[in-house]
Amino acid sequence: MPRLEGGYAPIPTPFTPSSDLDWEALKLNLEFWNSFPLAGYVVLGSNGEAVHLREPEKLALIDRVRQNAPEERQVIAGTGLFSTTETSALTRSAAEAGADAALVLPPFYFRGQMTNDVLARHFRTVADESPIPVIVYNMPANTALDMPAPLLAQLSEHENIAGLKDSSGNIAKLSELRQGAAPGFALLAGSAGFFLPALAAGADGGVLALANIAPQICLEILALSRGGDWERARSLQARIARANRAVTRQWGVPALKAAMDLIGLSGGLPRPPLIALAEGNRRELQTILTEAGIPAAKETE
Amino acid sequence: MPRLEGGYAPIPTPFTPSSDLDWEALKLNLEFWNSFPLAGYVVLGSNGEAVHLREPEKLALIDRVRQNAPEERQVIAGTGLFSTTETSALTRSAAEAGADAALVLPPFYFRGQMTNDVLARHFRTVADESPIPVIVYNMPANTALDMPAPLLAQLSEHENIAGLKDSSGNIAKLSELRQGAAPGFALLAGSAGFFLPALAAGADGGVLALANIAPQICLEILALSRGGDWERARSLQARIARANRAVTRQWGVPALKAAMDLIGLSGGLPRPPLIALAEGNRRELQTILTEAGIPAAKETE
Amino acid sequence: MPRLEGGYAPIPTPFTPSSDLDWEALKLNLEFWNSFPLAGYVVLGSNGEAVHLREPEKLALIDRVRQNAPEERQVIAGTGLFSTTETSALTRSAAEAGADAALVLPPFYFRGQMTNDVLARHFRTVADESPIPVIVYNMPANTALDMPAPLLAQLSEHENIAGLKDSSGNIAKLSELRQGAAPGFALLAGSAGFFLPALAAGADGGVLALANIAPQICLEILALSRGGDWERARSLQARIARANRAVTRQWGVPALKAAMDLIGLSGGLPRPPLIALAEGNRRELQTILTEAGIPAAKETE
Amino acid sequence: MPRLEGGYAPIPTPFTPSSDLDWEALKLNLEFWNSFPLAGYVVLGSNGEAVHLREPEKLALIDRVRQNAPEERQVIAGTGLFSTTETSALTRSAAEAGADAALVLPPFYFRGQMTNDVLARHFRTVADESPIPVIVYNMPANTALDMPAPLLAQLSEHENIAGLKDSSGNIAKLSELRQGAAPGFALLAGSAGFFLPALAAGADGGVLALANIAPQICLEILALSRGGDWERARSLQARIARANRAVTRQWGVPALKAAMDLIGLSGGLPRPPLIALAEGNRRELQTILTEAGIPAAKETE
Repeated sequence: MPRLEGGYAPIPTPFTPSSDLDWEALKLNLEFWNSFPLAGYVVLGSNGEAVHLREPEKLALIDRVRQNAPEERQVIAGTGLFSTTETSALTRSAAEAGADAALVLPPFYFRGQMTNDVLARHFRTVADESPIPVIVYNMPANTALDMPAPLLAQLSEHENIAGLKDSSGNIAKLSELRQGAAPGFALLAGSAGFFLPALAAGADGGVLALANIAPQICLEILALSRGGDWERARSLQARIARANRAVTRQWGVPALKAAMDLIGLSGGLPRPPLIALAEGNRRELQTILTEAGIPAAKETE
Repeated sequence: MPRLEGGYAPIPTPFTPSSDLDWEALKLNLEFWNSFPLAGYVVLGSNGEAVHLREPEKLALIDRVRQNAPEERQVIAGTGLFSTTETSALTRSAAEAGADAALVLPPFYFRGQMTNDVLARHFRTVADESPIPVIVYNMPANTALDMPAPLLAQLSEHENIAGLKDSSGNIAKLSELRQGAAPGFALLAGSAGFFLPALAAGADGGVLALANIAPQICLEILALSRGGDWERARSLQARIARANRAVTRQWGVPALKAAMDLIGLSGGLPRPPLIALAEGNRRELQTILTEAGIPAAKETE
Repeated sequence: MPRLEGGYAPIPTPFTPSSDLDWEALKLNLEFWNSFPLAGYVVLGSNGEAVHLREPEKLALIDRVRQNAPEERQVIAGTGLFSTTETSALTRSAAEAGADAALVLPPFYFRGQMTNDVLARHFRTVADESPIPVIVYNMPANTALDMPAPLLAQLSEHENIAGLKDSSGNIAKLSELRQGAAPGFALLAGSAGFFLPALAAGADGGVLALANIAPQICLEILALSRGGDWERARSLQARIARANRAVTRQWGVPALKAAMDLIGLSGGLPRPPLIALAEGNRRELQTILTEAGIPAAKETE
Repeated sequence: MPRLEGGYAPIPTPFTPSSDLDWEALKLNLEFWNSFPLAGYVVLGSNGEAVHLREPEKLALIDRVRQNAPEERQVIAGTGLFSTTETSALTRSAAEAGADAALVLPPFYFRGQMTNDVLARHFRTVADESPIPVIVYNMPANTALDMPAPLLAQLSEHENIAGLKDSSGNIAKLSELRQGAAPGFALLAGSAGFFLPALAAGADGGVLALANIAPQICLEILALSRGGDWERARSLQARIARANRAVTRQWGVPALKAAMDLIGLSGGLPRPPLIALAEGNRRELQTILTEAGIPAAKETE
């Protein structure tokens, strides 16, 4: 597998009005995303509503994304479940379905018992048994479990644990890991809200909800930072911060899907219990997208 | 269905050394529990490691417990999943497998979007579609989501939402609900650590991890409080508080299973990522059980 | 000093419209409170806005309350500050001003460094140097620091640490302390929201914001529980739960002061940054007080 | 007052063995710090143990630092207290004692009542009444109160609110404020753990505990980023991340003071309840400082 670096889109899962997987919508969205030099796609991440999907749906999704993505584009599948054994099994199935790597949440239900030792054992077992590289997924906003730097540094030593997606926004931790993690361990920012700061700290790329609706801006931030033009990068980063918060922390998946609809992609509705973004918020979101300079899909494809 | 009241055991799921369901151990444990006048069993609760089980295992467990329990004893199945539709489906299957009621966790992954309205819609939909009564399960230690009194009072008005199991330990909320909830709405304490205080606040009973290893003490607290002997009840309550913390908040399911082994039941190991209670903690647990006056299973059956 | 038991009112500090101490209002309020068999008053607690007062004001307040209270009624002064030395000094001054005991918050600013050892050393030093008994004050809603049972049990062994006021509402902890704390260590419920449940767990009394506006109900709950009539006590407890939440967690000191005004006492305004209860909330509060059956001051004095 | 930008040291307050202010130590430390082109000093910040000092001590400290610092160097004083009126009064006194600006914590005791409106009113009142510019100090690790971007953007419009010190490490918020705050509003990183990332997001400088022991490295990160050499800056940032965590989140003020002693400055002991860094941790700290390449004071002055 090639190195984990660059911009990744954690793609939402489109549903038909009757809440089935909407393959046509997926294909159209991918055509848009395929037209940008993203490094890959994360299927079955938080934005993909992995927790709302049954296993056959998960595997079918991986397969379809793999079929509809350029060959060199990485397909990363979220495979974290609460049981170690189930996580391993799903990871193997995901690999067979075409995933290049697995993004693994910690098992967070029994939070009080998740000591560093227990978590280390879990991730090592999954990585040992996985035919594809494992990426650790730290997402405390959803899991209420924040993995500390020493644990992550320790996990980075495993030969089949390839990197970390960190959505906590704790850049001090990323910076500490840039020094303390094993060489070659990939650090991926988990949100566009801190993409440039994470790159400044040495991140290799990002898995960015915003890349679904503004891939050109996300990739421009990356290119500008790599080219040394941090001033223009900073300006872009500031411009999209509010929009990013709207489609992540503030209003979540319903807003990301609404934003896709607003720019001409196929967002649609999330599965219940998530509901459509309220109409008033939708109007506010339109204003926020406009202020961020996020163009309609047609104009940029 | 009869009223929800009295003492319930949220039974652990026994596994064989190869981590399969251990039907023999389940049967032996049930023989012990059946010998006490518990009101019923909660299968697939937190202590049942529901999150570590596949759906066929879940349904088989419900069926076996139903087969091995006295007819009038209630079997309550944990059926909460992250998707509303999946929760409804599992609830229906659980009913078919023999469950008398369903215990439903809130969908906690997208915590930031779980407004009272969203949660109310979720629980109402599940209750509308369920052939058996629904019990709301508030368990913030595991879910990092604490449902407030006004939401719970609102849910209590639904004719197929029969009660609440509250494991938060917030007795002020129980007390407020005793006044504000619909008449007949059952309030069940979610831990023996505050069983008597909850009864004082008007709880109808409790779903108590400790009832797995000390059913006689839990039921004695209930009987004493009903008989007006609060002084002796208080003394028993204080005596078991430390032991209760050991097998819940402090060391969790591994300790509950170890305690079952220590008193002569079949606890065994949890499924990974949970691990066996560390040897040093096991020794401390033995002391704690002794100090609480929890007898060996044989002596009391 | 007599045993800590019974009902205590943590009295608000009345201010004149120009935000000075309002001695006349204090005197009138005390006349009302003195007419009920409360065990004592807590001056300079959270409801007393201790954090908004300068030291001379604090000492003057203790003195006035002492002067205007029946001789046998205990006056407890909040003296916790962030520095151990300052806490000791204020405790000594409070004793000289007439306080019978000191209620001491943990030093919570450097929360991350407040290990059990550090906290134990702090409380022991304060207790060693105090001429009056010390009461530990656990108030995580304000301090974001929750002292665990083992630490509190350890502190209970100190001969000059007389008790605990616990406002966390964690009754399981109270129950564990009833067994694990030194004999004679007083356990005081920190809120009327869980007064009866705490009494069921073995609490000796309570320091109850609600006792400022409904001393008769709080004392009735206590009397009924002591007399063995838990059913009527439970009913009263449930009746006041909503009102208690309104004047504590939900709307805080501004609501408690507004409630005092509404029943004919002298509440007045808090000091900034706290502001007057919003007019809409004030109307809702009136309804809540009525539904709880809290009478006007004149009718009951 | 000149613009707030560059590197600031939030200086610890040195105490004699008998816990008095140690003026000689302060002078020696300042001689060291004065030899680096820091923009200024924060007196009475968290690291200055403001909460452990009496008002006369606070004012004397401001005066001494002002006397012993180069004239153009800014002296910023922490003046946040729980009462709005007291905060205003201390801010005025601090200005008279020589402070160029005031760093103001939110009043965090009544956290539950600190709505955005209440906080806005508090900061505006303090700023209205202050003869010197006010800097808002967001420090959730100590206050358990995290001020959101919209509130901070609103405060930035006040002509006498000059900037924000943010110690939360939430760089997405800084980035959003870089766009949403009033032009000229200074954004200061509150920790060296995310100094470079914050600069990438558009921060104007930082108030960095680490600048007390490694001013040369902190200033080098700043200079490299301004000079466009982000690669070397990133490397330095990663090198100091572990050391920074040691003297902040992990071991706090006791470790910062120990580190000062270890490099040849006068750290000494904090005031109780804080205690000296444990001997084992002190040895580990020495290793961490060495690995970070932090030189002895003498070598660099």
